[in-house]
Amino acid sequence: MSESKQSLISVANAQRIVLDHVQLVAVESTDLMQALGLTLAEEISCDIDMPPFDKAMMDGFALRSADATAPGATLRVIDHVAAGSSADVPVEAGAAVRINTGAPVPSGADAVIRIEDTQWSDDGGSIALKVAASAGKNICDRADYLAAGTVVLSKGMRLGPSQIAVAAAAGASQVSVYKRPVFAVLATGNELVDIDQIPTGAQIRNSNTPMLAALLSDDGVDVVSLGIAPDDVAGLTKCIQYGLECDGLCISGGVSMGAYDFVPEVLTKCGVEVHFHKMAAKPGKPTLFGTTEKGTCVFGLPGNPISAMVGYWLLVRPAIAAMQGRTGEVPKMIEARLIGNQKQAGDRASYWPASIEADEGGRLTASALSWRGSGDPFGMGSANGWIVRPTGSPAATDGDVVQVIILERI
Amino acid sequence: MSESKQSLISVANAQRIVLDHVQLVAVESTDLMQALGLTLAEEISCDIDMPPFDKAMMDGFALRSADATAPGATLRVIDHVAAGSSADVPVEAGAAVRINTGAPVPSGADAVIRIEDTQWSDDGGSIALKVAASAGKNICDRADYLAAGTVVLSKGMRLGPSQIAVAAAAGASQVSVYKRPVFAVLATGNELVDIDQIPTGAQIRNSNTPMLAALLSDDGVDVVSLGIAPDDVAGLTKCIQYGLECDGLCISGGVSMGAYDFVPEVLTKCGVEVHFHKMAAKPGKPTLFGTTEKGTCVFGLPGNPISAMVGYWLLVRPAIAAMQGRTGEVPKMIEARLIGNQKQAGDRASYWPASIEADEGGRLTASALSWRGSGDPFGMGSANGWIVRPTGSPAATDGDVVQVIILERI
Repeated sequence: MSESKQSLISVANAQRIVLDHVQLVAVESTDLMQALGLTLAEEISCDIDMPPFDKAMMDGFALRSADATAPGATLRVIDHVAAGSSADVPVEAGAAVRINTGAPVPSGADAVIRIEDTQWSDDGGSIALKVAASAGKNICDRADYLAAGTVVLSKGMRLGPSQIAVAAAAGASQVSVYKRPVFAVLATGNELVDIDQIPTGAQIRNSNTPMLAALLSDDGVDVVSLGIAPDDVAGLTKCIQYGLECDGLCISGGVSMGAYDFVPEVLTKCGVEVHFHKMAAKPGKPTLFGTTEKGTCVFGLPGNPISAMVGYWLLVRPAIAAMQGRTGEVPKMIEARLIGNQKQAGDRASYWPASIEADEGGRLTASALSWRGSGDPFGMGSANGWIVRPTGSPAATDGDVVQVIILERI
Repeated sequence: MSESKQSLISVANAQRIVLDHVQLVAVESTDLMQALGLTLAEEISCDIDMPPFDKAMMDGFALRSADATAPGATLRVIDHVAAGSSADVPVEAGAAVRINTGAPVPSGADAVIRIEDTQWSDDGGSIALKVAASAGKNICDRADYLAAGTVVLSKGMRLGPSQIAVAAAAGASQVSVYKRPVFAVLATGNELVDIDQIPTGAQIRNSNTPMLAALLSDDGVDVVSLGIAPDDVAGLTKCIQYGLECDGLCISGGVSMGAYDFVPEVLTKCGVEVHFHKMAAKPGKPTLFGTTEKGTCVFGLPGNPISAMVGYWLLVRPAIAAMQGRTGEVPKMIEARLIGNQKQAGDRASYWPASIEADEGGRLTASALSWRGSGDPFGMGSANGWIVRPTGSPAATDGDVVQVIILERI
């Protein structure tokens, strides 16, 4: 690794380098019902005109507008078309057909009058109209939404519930998507014990593996947990080689400057080209990114949970999107009004756990949460975002406008 | 159903009625690694002091501050403590111990000096300090983050990745959570065909079942798909009775005023008390809510996909949260600047598919998407939110501040 790769690079540069090195995962065909959260590898067109027929937009009566140029007309009711049925007879002069919303308008008719605007005769054989009709009234013409062959979803779109609905309406029961990426998660450090252990002496619990597994699952990634690696070269090498078989490998701990931090050395031995090793983020400075020849992305994240989460959000999450053809998914900065205080930022952009809410008027507020710094894992318990303070930002106080990253749906 | 329940009620009232009738699902104990997205049924306290020992916050040397009141002091290096290890010997006057971030500070030492601020002697047996030390420097005292027994996560919190990390650090490898709710989804309408069919005549595809299944899955609900019910009382009754065994039942279609819309009648026969049947939302007016004696929530949603989605977001999603003890999770209204135009709202609050983005400065914009109205399923393909126009809102044009609901992480 050259000297320059050891230097502190900006978050924006780090993101650019990661996105420049990400390779697309393979494409597969899958059932639409299994595709939630996956990303389209090809565009989807609608296979039919929509609507496929002239459609009634109201419950009421289909009729000829020429028969009802003024309120008061009386028409014979000759049929009833429910949604899903077609009329048996055409609508001739002086006739009307009872029709339900969504049903095809029978031939001959060119308007639909709402049931509320009609009055049945005593014998139920005819109706009187309370209003006049005009041609096209309450009818949606065939292909009015779109014509067969129109593209309705683009390549690179993530299939959320709305896109699933659109694909379903377009007849895309099978879709071509990028495969769900597979990431390995490896925690390093002799001090770590599993979360069901009570730490003794110098031990601490491994909260990073559960956290990273949860973050990755939330982002639609299949997770392979490699547990806790020992702080020795041989054991670590074995774990890392196994992890490099996946699309991505997240390693927490072992990337700072301590004498027992073997990770960078072992990565290089395993054929990982390290592209950077320090990022101008606070917390999150000792963050590493590398790739193998076959394209596995390796993220070395700090051992402190909140620091690891900053690295995850800034780098890993955008990489997961890019692996599936979704580019530009770096976390967006949003304006919010600060509740609390923030110190001035130094030579690193700072990220502070925050509770982001909307006030009565719909303006966002960001409450800085109590947090003792990167070693303290508890500051994020009620956080749904970060207050972001770019390099060199002045101190901020209550009421100032700051930038935030929102981690959850708000 | 009384006359008043047939009248148009406001969205806020509809939400209040739903939340007033929701019952909590059962509680179970689960492995923390399986609990992502579930909600805590009891608070979590940390079982140990955090940190559990006086901890080094930097890679460097632990020493007695009295030995280094000014820069230039020279100290013998007598040991090395890695994270996960404890020092074998106490730090006496004139001595220093090499220490890694996260390791316990050895007895006798009261300060840690960063490795960057020291200089090794040629023989490697001692260091010269470039800076002075003060008591407590770069040390985090035992229990400084919190003392054993402190509550770190409250009852009613959803376990996202951050909360999973906090629970892990606190030793909560098993957690008491509300069970994942189970919802049945039923589409009604003779006109419906499965999405892998090519509609003929008066048919249209059933896009609501895939959409509702996706929405429910996204919200952590287990989905039972009941397929398409026929538009006859006997068949519908059977489907609905089956669905009422679940915690919730979403029915799409069959709740408007068409002659073949049997749903309200069948629900009443099946023991469902209908609390309201029309909501002042556009789209989404023919939305129904009822409950059974044992507490199953029944949502009758409109047959048009975008209308059904509005009903889902305004009512079903808050109900799912409330079933798990998360109250107040009605969609939040956020300010954004309109791109495009909006007509004045009538006697119903209107919801228009929109693309919500952040501009360079972090201000939100809402672009109104092309949409032909409630029957058009394609307006939501690139929507990540709704522009919300409360009852009676005046027309809005480009640049006006409007309220939006954001459907995805932004």
